[in-house]
Amino acid sequence: VTLLLLYPNDFINEKTVRLSDYRHKHVINILRSKVGDKLIVGLINERIGQGEILTLNQEYADLKITLNASAPHPLKVNVVLALPRPIVLNRILLTLSSLGVKKIYLIHSSRVEKSYWKSPVLKEQNVKEQLILGLEQAKDTIMPEVIMFPRFKSFVEDKLPAIMKDSTALVAHPGSKKRCPSSLKKQTTIIIGPEGGFIPYEIELLEKFGVQPVRLTERILKVETFIPVILSKLFY
Amino acid sequence: VTLLLLYPNDFINEKTVRLSDYRHKHVINILRSKVGDKLIVGLINERIGQGEILTLNQEYADLKITLNASAPHPLKVNVVLALPRPIVLNRILLTLSSLGVKKIYLIHSSRVEKSYWKSPVLKEQNVKEQLILGLEQAKDTIMPEVIMFPRFKSFVEDKLPAIMKDSTALVAHPGSKKRCPSSLKKQTTIIIGPEGGFIPYEIELLEKFGVQPVRLTERILKVETFIPVILSKLFY
Repeated sequence: VTLLLLYPNDFINEKTVRLSDYRHKHVINILRSKVGDKLIVGLINERIGQGEILTLNQEYADLKITLNASAPHPLKVNVVLALPRPIVLNRILLTLSSLGVKKIYLIHSSRVEKSYWKSPVLKEQNVKEQLILGLEQAKDTIMPEVIMFPRFKSFVEDKLPAIMKDSTALVAHPGSKKRCPSSLKKQTTIIIGPEGGFIPYEIELLEKFGVQPVRLTERILKVETFIPVILSKLFY
Repeated sequence: VTLLLLYPNDFINEKTVRLSDYRHKHVINILRSKVGDKLIVGLINERIGQGEILTLNQEYADLKITLNASAPHPLKVNVVLALPRPIVLNRILLTLSSLGVKKIYLIHSSRVEKSYWKSPVLKEQNVKEQLILGLEQAKDTIMPEVIMFPRFKSFVEDKLPAIMKDSTALVAHPGSKKRCPSSLKKQTTIIIGPEGGFIPYEIELLEKFGVQPVRLTERILKVETFIPVILSKLFY
């Protein structure tokens, strides 16, 4: 955690927040702060700045807040991701959030095991916690949105056209002729398959709806490695 | 594991290997292969190809080997990395190996806890296992080399000049004026600091030896996310 994320109801008056939850413990046990220290803070979906510790005791920390800088730029991207194995999903949500992705669509695909959709990792509260950890890591405040579609065909036919409207729509597919573009400035929709990739029917359906297959590397990478690789290639 | 890595002493004759260790179990329990199936294989530090299962029983698997393709291209890079926390080092070694890095230097830095150097994760056998997992993931065969330098100053003064000779030498440093270059074709040395970054003295010493600080993103990323991001930016 490099930034303490604040919420409107933390404020006890216009300039002061009182923290008594995990953030209070973090200030004491991890940051080992004392009265007068200035910490990096951000208000959810608002600006970032500093919090000066006014009071610090075993029950709470009061901080005087100055919000004087913008959150880092979001990436202009919709990430559509075949649902990863639950054991890696937490890390992937944190990674996507830290990289500045604000729209995350988790979809089904032929090579996604149906049981993954029943994992407790997908519960709203857990998803939110991972996204917040990613924001706090990257000194960001803008909460990403995660939307789940447990059926591939109806996602592509009924939802994707609106999602990819006015954006460049790409699907990462090792076999394709076109190389992945780089340094994009325009809104982009990037679709990333499961381990083992999309099946031919799925690629064909995506192409039919105007999504272009692109290749990036001959190496087979874990999805948690591939995500930073392709987002860096597209936007950094 | 997308490739079974073979060693010279697996061969029982010119064309046939016999596997009776974890790879034998992998063929039975994970791949659920049967006689006649063809698996992707590679010979350590040599070519990749196919292995056709000739015999499969509870004690061993015999495969007829054809090596007919090159391993994927290595990245032309020396990665110099401040020693990460032991808990993430395994994953980082696997990631570096899967991305095609062949020279990995782990160094000390002011913000690396000295105790990290005593972690069992650094033992040769464990390091080798992670590197092999990375090769098997990426269908690669060329074993990376990991070299450890538990003292920063003597590393920079005595070892770095030879390492960075004939390469572009860069240190990732968020504050610097120059942006990180991209699509490099030339041999490159990239130096990556610990969480919290290098201290000013360390950056100054690196600059004195001809290393150029470059920035990539205003976001603070975990080192396991930053590594694929910067390697993608530099080379993909």
